[in-house]
Amino acid sequence: MIPAPAASPELARLCVNTLKFLAVDAIEAANSGHPGLPLGAADLAYVLWSRFLRHDPADPHWPDRDRFLLSPGHGSMLLYGLLHLSGYDLPLDELKRFRQWGSKTPGHPEVHLTPGVEVTTGPLGQGFANGVGMALAAKMAAARFPGLFAHRVWALVSDGDVMEGVAYEAASLAGHLKLGNLIYVYDDNRITLDGGIDEAFSEDVVTRFESAGWRAERVDGHDHDALAAAYARAIAQDEKPTLILARTIIGHGAPSKSNSHKVHGEPLGTSETAATRKALGWGDETFVVPDAVRAHFAARAAEGATARAAWRTHEARWFDAHPERVETYRAMRDRVAPQDLLQQLLAAVPAATDATRGLASVLEQRVAALMPSLVGGDADLGGSTKTPIKDSPKVRAGEFLGRNLRFGIREHAMGSLANGMALYGMFVPFTATFLTFSDYMRPAIRLAALSQLPVVHVFTHDSVFLGEDGPTHQSVEHVSALRLIPNVHVWRPADGVECAAAWASAATRRDGPTELILTRQKVDALPESEGRGERAAKGAYVLVREEGGAPTVVILATGSEVGLAVGAAKALNAEGERVRVVSVPCMELFFAQPRAYRDEVLPAGVRRVSVEAGRTDLWRGWVGLDGLALGVDHFGASAPAPVLAEKYGLTASAVTARVRAFLRGE
Amino acid sequence: MIPAPAASPELARLCVNTLKFLAVDAIEAANSGHPGLPLGAADLAYVLWSRFLRHDPADPHWPDRDRFLLSPGHGSMLLYGLLHLSGYDLPLDELKRFRQWGSKTPGHPEVHLTPGVEVTTGPLGQGFANGVGMALAAKMAAARFPGLFAHRVWALVSDGDVMEGVAYEAASLAGHLKLGNLIYVYDDNRITLDGGIDEAFSEDVVTRFESAGWRAERVDGHDHDALAAAYARAIAQDEKPTLILARTIIGHGAPSKSNSHKVHGEPLGTSETAATRKALGWGDETFVVPDAVRAHFAARAAEGATARAAWRTHEARWFDAHPERVETYRAMRDRVAPQDLLQQLLAAVPAATDATRGLASVLEQRVAALMPSLVGGDADLGGSTKTPIKDSPKVRAGEFLGRNLRFGIREHAMGSLANGMALYGMFVPFTATFLTFSDYMRPAIRLAALSQLPVVHVFTHDSVFLGEDGPTHQSVEHVSALRLIPNVHVWRPADGVECAAAWASAATRRDGPTELILTRQKVDALPESEGRGERAAKGAYVLVREEGGAPTVVILATGSEVGLAVGAAKALNAEGERVRVVSVPCMELFFAQPRAYRDEVLPAGVRRVSVEAGRTDLWRGWVGLDGLALGVDHFGASAPAPVLAEKYGLTASAVTARVRAFLRGE
Repeated sequence: MIPAPAASPELARLCVNTLKFLAVDAIEAANSGHPGLPLGAADLAYVLWSRFLRHDPADPHWPDRDRFLLSPGHGSMLLYGLLHLSGYDLPLDELKRFRQWGSKTPGHPEVHLTPGVEVTTGPLGQGFANGVGMALAAKMAAARFPGLFAHRVWALVSDGDVMEGVAYEAASLAGHLKLGNLIYVYDDNRITLDGGIDEAFSEDVVTRFESAGWRAERVDGHDHDALAAAYARAIAQDEKPTLILARTIIGHGAPSKSNSHKVHGEPLGTSETAATRKALGWGDETFVVPDAVRAHFAARAAEGATARAAWRTHEARWFDAHPERVETYRAMRDRVAPQDLLQQLLAAVPAATDATRGLASVLEQRVAALMPSLVGGDADLGGSTKTPIKDSPKVRAGEFLGRNLRFGIREHAMGSLANGMALYGMFVPFTATFLTFSDYMRPAIRLAALSQLPVVHVFTHDSVFLGEDGPTHQSVEHVSALRLIPNVHVWRPADGVECAAAWASAATRRDGPTELILTRQKVDALPESEGRGERAAKGAYVLVREEGGAPTVVILATGSEVGLAVGAAKALNAEGERVRVVSVPCMELFFAQPRAYRDEVLPAGVRRVSVEAGRTDLWRGWVGLDGLALGVDHFGASAPAPVLAEKYGLTASAVTARVRAFLRGE
Repeated sequence: MIPAPAASPELARLCVNTLKFLAVDAIEAANSGHPGLPLGAADLAYVLWSRFLRHDPADPHWPDRDRFLLSPGHGSMLLYGLLHLSGYDLPLDELKRFRQWGSKTPGHPEVHLTPGVEVTTGPLGQGFANGVGMALAAKMAAARFPGLFAHRVWALVSDGDVMEGVAYEAASLAGHLKLGNLIYVYDDNRITLDGGIDEAFSEDVVTRFESAGWRAERVDGHDHDALAAAYARAIAQDEKPTLILARTIIGHGAPSKSNSHKVHGEPLGTSETAATRKALGWGDETFVVPDAVRAHFAARAAEGATARAAWRTHEARWFDAHPERVETYRAMRDRVAPQDLLQQLLAAVPAATDATRGLASVLEQRVAALMPSLVGGDADLGGSTKTPIKDSPKVRAGEFLGRNLRFGIREHAMGSLANGMALYGMFVPFTATFLTFSDYMRPAIRLAALSQLPVVHVFTHDSVFLGEDGPTHQSVEHVSALRLIPNVHVWRPADGVECAAAWASAATRRDGPTELILTRQKVDALPESEGRGERAAKGAYVLVREEGGAPTVVILATGSEVGLAVGAAKALNAEGERVRVVSVPCMELFFAQPRAYRDEVLPAGVRRVSVEAGRTDLWRGWVGLDGLALGVDHFGASAPAPVLAEKYGLTASAVTARVRAFLRGE
């Protein structure tokens, strides 16, 4: 199948022009979009898709397919054109509805919307790093099932990708891990949105990538033979990742706008479109696909179908030869989690009090034992996050059997690689660092949420109570800031039982990321009650129920502050109050509960207090205009944690005093 | 002054050991800290500070001083030791209170706390990038006042700094701009917190930096002569930034823990401390500074004082020779803003309706005309953010007179460089990109807030109403997420008048960053009233006052949704309601108003509705448990903006209907 023979130059030109005008026509119809990339990169993409890419449009999820990523997602119409011509389930009508409500052709590709789109891209640098994660996952899958897979990860990357920090981080990791299955084609057009790239960029890109352990070579991005030769050289080796710098002309074919930033981000317009049609010998009819082009791509699709069928046969034989691997394979392929994971984890909760990072670590080990899909790593803080999987080696170049990844001091790439691993399939990746460094990963977390990826982000050292390291390391706003991202589950468990609920939820969630927010410091033991783990899994529950009548106040708390709430309740109840304590380990899951449950936990008309060692803004919506929200709304300070607790009024006695004063209207 | 002659080897060793044991003793006393770096880098820091660094401890803000940055802020005790020995206002008692409440020696250096600390560091990569911003600012200052300045920017950088993406971005810019005044010493100790760097990093660092336009050379980081020679080579040229890879042994001198990750982040402990004292011939007394060491540093400080005095003379002569520059110099030195800036901007508000990005652009031009300190740039989106300063060239290598910076597609470095420029002095820098990419800059924004830096971040395309580009580019959570960072002012102006208030506040604020959140789409004209600009400057104000009695409902809104609120008020008032509309361009400033003003704007007991095209979480705290918060709590979609407004219920008629239903209790 690879490389397929070249089409005649005439047919190749016809295919390229079809791709170009599908893009031009769709962008003109939408009166919105980016024609520069589809015109400039149609040649290199055509050669790749028609001769090298191993895929079967009839089965976009075939495990042994090559992955193709369009990192500069603004060039989406190139990808949609390729998918349509290749025979993916993306009819011409969808191309005509480019960038319209409800279409499968949004402005930037979205993996959960469009068959054949492997990754959601747009924010530059992310796709570059996602591809590294995919290639890493492919190496790890191949190590687990040797001889079963033979695919590669290809990406088209852009100027923006080589300038964004996350791409440098990812490239450094790809070279370090010698990901020879990774082949990137750099659309080196020297033009960015605002002008010439030389206004802001003058690196020797070949040397830069070589210094990071890559192969790198330059090629004319419009010369099909040269491109094919470069692709062939890349797949002929498995020693290093490859960067092919394809020198292209942005907007190639547009007579007056090509090679100019004017063609980057706006439709060509009527007159330039007409001029481009004339220059390339294309008729006036829009959305045209010549029969010869259809036939050419159909033949290629047939080869893909044959390749897939052959692989299915190979797969069956492989399992005949390796019966002992079938169960693991299926568990990983389907990312299976035990049905009773929560119960199993609840049974594994350590008896001793500890920091939630320690308690969660024990439970993570249990998840790892039950789920071969779980792999992960940290940004050089594993000793502090306590997340490395025990009894499993570290992944290294050439040794991909381990489950522990060493991301280095590269939080952003860690997040983006984890997304790529989740997109690849087979793995449920986790990451780990201090909560304050979630800021470095935020673009990746957002894309995990938008793309509905099963990724677990472990964040320890979750408040001012990490103490002496001071305000640069003390989270104040981060828990709330993560809660604001749609489709993210943010857990801040208070003890071992809640850690079990958190890990059970995180490990089984398949439609979005989960954040596990954990303490550095020890937490108090909480009062036990029947079914508490299951109630914790609802996101919020009554931890301490008032006695002797309706509650006079409800104290809401999370994580390390739940113990303070319990302490305050005890003291105030002794004074005659009827205090309810509601633990809120995961706001998002509580909001998803039926109204009746929520009203039962939080009865209307009862005064409310919240306690969380962080910003109070979100809690003001819980406690109401006449409620009391206790927290930390300013930056912390470098001092031992007990001193900070005293200064910031977050001791049990201080909370008691503040709630008492609140109830008295003081 | 530079280079000063070398001390005798014996005296040099005594100085180095003093630095080492001040660190060891302080970390042991705190029982917390990072001894590895101070021990490993004491040699290279001593040679730099005692022979090359141009500074006067008696005047930490002398404009022509060299800047020194400790990018790996966890090695803070090395810096505190250097500051103390050099004679900065940092008594030994402060070193004894390392990492304690209220001390000037927090766990990581904080610029606003400690004399001589040039930058707050800790989150890795930031200091590296801040230094590039300082060197850029120095070049720009030198271009404006040729012959006046002769200083450089030095930094100690670490493994983490060379692995973080923001440092690559910043290094690329430094090389591109040929910042020959930048000299970085890389503490190349091959050990990170979790183990050997070779577990995660195998770049050829010399080649990498050379590919980005740097000079790079390797040196033995414990060989004083070799270090001095490398420093001398670096300052002998001004063509390229320099990276000196100083091979060091982490924890140098600790017999059993050196060259191991065990010495990175924990105190040595009693026995290893004793063994280190023995190995280095140091007595048992703690916090010792030998007289010879004091005298040596005092002599160096005297040289610094002489240099400063000479520069002051030079400065006076320079102004005699360039009287026409004195006014500009003072305006920049003191970052002067006109007292009546708000009034001047209000007078400049364009009459036509436009997007707030367009309105703000006009006002920014006015600020630029009034304040020579204002400089800035964008991440390759200037055509869209409309922020380039007119009639001023772009800054390029060798041409630093311009006010427009081309940061390239490097949002994170843009933020960090802006922080460095603000720290340098003379400049009030602004940055610009789309709001969704604020995620890439978040670590820098947080440090600007913590460090109380006058930086302006312009973010356009502020909601789902950017339309077709789709959810990767549509902000939903970002406005609220920025509001959560302490000490950040987030402005989302609704029209030209509010843009004037926003820019006036941003340009005059000196104790923290300001975010200007602006629309891509046109906004409605708002009803005018006397003194509206001054009221907008209070952060929130009554835009439409109810008539005929107390209000039946208050609608709170920001930015592009204020027009919807006004429309809904009009419709509902026609139905007999008494609707008040409160515009809230800046929550933080409203919270800072006196209670009486806040109660007047938001009277108690009146039902409340909020409208903002983004997450509603924060607004629930404004409207209360029985209020109504309208917004967008999910990811957006790719479609024309008017279609999204319809689908998401954010048209005037939809808002009217929802408020009406709310008032009727439906």
